[in-house]
Amino acid sequence: MVKVNFWFYASIIMSFDEDFWGEKKKAVMLVRAKILEAARKWFKEHGFIEVHGPIIIPALSEHSGSIEVKILDMKGYLAQGLQPYAEVLVSKLGKIYTIAPSFRAERAITNRHLIEYWRIEAEIPNCNLDKLMEVQERLVSYICHFLVKEAKEEFERLNRNIMDLKKIDVPFLRLTYDKVIKILQKDGFEIHWGTTLDWEHEKHLSLRLNKPFFISEFPVNIENFFFEFNPEKPEYSLTVDLLAPEGYGEISSGGQPAFKTEEMLRKMREERIDPSIQKWYIDLKNKGSIPYSGFSMGIERLTQWICKLIQIKESVAFPRLFGCIYP
Amino acid sequence: MVKVNFWFYASIIMSFDEDFWGEKKKAVMLVRAKILEAARKWFKEHGFIEVHGPIIIPALSEHSGSIEVKILDMKGYLAQGLQPYAEVLVSKLGKIYTIAPSFRAERAITNRHLIEYWRIEAEIPNCNLDKLMEVQERLVSYICHFLVKEAKEEFERLNRNIMDLKKIDVPFLRLTYDKVIKILQKDGFEIHWGTTLDWEHEKHLSLRLNKPFFISEFPVNIENFFFEFNPEKPEYSLTVDLLAPEGYGEISSGGQPAFKTEEMLRKMREERIDPSIQKWYIDLKNKGSIPYSGFSMGIERLTQWICKLIQIKESVAFPRLFGCIYP
Repeated sequence: MVKVNFWFYASIIMSFDEDFWGEKKKAVMLVRAKILEAARKWFKEHGFIEVHGPIIIPALSEHSGSIEVKILDMKGYLAQGLQPYAEVLVSKLGKIYTIAPSFRAERAITNRHLIEYWRIEAEIPNCNLDKLMEVQERLVSYICHFLVKEAKEEFERLNRNIMDLKKIDVPFLRLTYDKVIKILQKDGFEIHWGTTLDWEHEKHLSLRLNKPFFISEFPVNIENFFFEFNPEKPEYSLTVDLLAPEGYGEISSGGQPAFKTEEMLRKMREERIDPSIQKWYIDLKNKGSIPYSGFSMGIERLTQWICKLIQIKESVAFPRLFGCIYP
Repeated sequence: MVKVNFWFYASIIMSFDEDFWGEKKKAVMLVRAKILEAARKWFKEHGFIEVHGPIIIPALSEHSGSIEVKILDMKGYLAQGLQPYAEVLVSKLGKIYTIAPSFRAERAITNRHLIEYWRIEAEIPNCNLDKLMEVQERLVSYICHFLVKEAKEEFERLNRNIMDLKKIDVPFLRLTYDKVIKILQKDGFEIHWGTTLDWEHEKHLSLRLNKPFFISEFPVNIENFFFEFNPEKPEYSLTVDLLAPEGYGEISSGGQPAFKTEEMLRKMREERIDPSIQKWYIDLKNKGSIPYSGFSMGIERLTQWICKLIQIKESVAFPRLFGCIYP
């Protein structure tokens, strides 16, 4: 007998209901489709090549939340990004981008996590942190202006004032991690240099602004060996997050992967990476890698902010939440 | 200690080599990107809305080759298409398409199977089999003509004569399953009505032609309960495959999902589907479904034919083969 899951069908039937798939949901789905269209248009106009990296991958490392797959007796994991394939792709093809699903099974503390989400990832050869920020602010403002023209009706149905999106112009505010720590301390948060920013911090900063903004140069101790450090200030990594305004917080993160292998090796030792792997990783860098930078932007988070949605699950047709893959 | 997979890095390093990622591979990747661009352009011009269905799904049925995922103590499967979510999406949004990864862990008998592949899937409300063929022939010929203009250099590097693609014009040849059985019998194959076409049959037909062609109306006994039958000839299902010429074979399959629930129920009983599920499936159809048709086209198979590649694994950056997920 063919086995079919009872609750699965029951839940799909419920999803026909107006409260699950009403006019608002339709408007969000149309905006989401237009965000994708705008992003690809921008990449095309700027000479990026679309690629698809593999999704089932051998273990890169025990990423938090990696989802395991089983194919007969073979074990694999679902990818969370193009790494380390990006090394090959960017050195062979130049500027690349992908729009692809990512998987991370982390317990959601806020309304901002899905276990299955789509991302816009781009990798750019010979690109420093400044240029990486420029690429992202141009991309995001292009998307916003595209939507102002192409999604008027949808925003009306969503009660989103298109004037809010019309003013999303370059340049975006550039904050450093140092500056952010000072702002937070001044505003009464008990936080000190060297700790990660958590959701309350992000939210606080994000609520003060009405345009996306960058936070760059996080302390090396809170980033992994993967990223380059600032040669003039070696305690800072060449990493940057993009945060949405209006209380939405992080929508993208990225940086410049390490290229100077000696320094990387030192960090790998500190992080107690298996010595045999240290060798291979360095070989990988020496074999054919070129310096590049990249970022990964969450499509659901971008959609959530653009449509001004309370919950991330509203930004996708059939959301996958930690602990629930129905309907 | 962070666990990193030794062979993984070793294999990535090897993938920098010219014999893995040489000029030919680059040309194929550029053509692949342009196929995606052309497809989306066509869908956009014809009013289709881009959607993303869920990838981690509860069991629909024990599909052959479904890949299992584990999230804590929860079990799921990687989707092979938009079904049954398409029911909701098409009834809420109208004409939809997706370009997304699919997963099927089947042992490859020919050079035509990947366990991870991308597909172009489209679903069209109130669409009969004729219109479904028209959509596909228009889409594929549009892609070919787009490439003739936009990928001249790449085809030169691939030794693909662009004149072969220039002549891919509508209409494509429409064969019925009945007609195909007669041709094969005449050509000496021992095949009788009611058996599935296998690779040798597909290849034989495909080698005789220089334009893609359709095979429609397969016997209901070799299709599943999911598809509608021909009301005038109830032993034939409303299904259609699109085959590439030059010996490449099937690149897409699709049809018209059942809408008449009584008949569907009868087939579900015949196929011994769990009775409790029969009820839910019928409810799903009655709740809000509309009649529609759809197809799923393999991007790697399309790329393989268009670039005239010997093996399917050449059509993707980092192929995933049954038994091998490296590099």
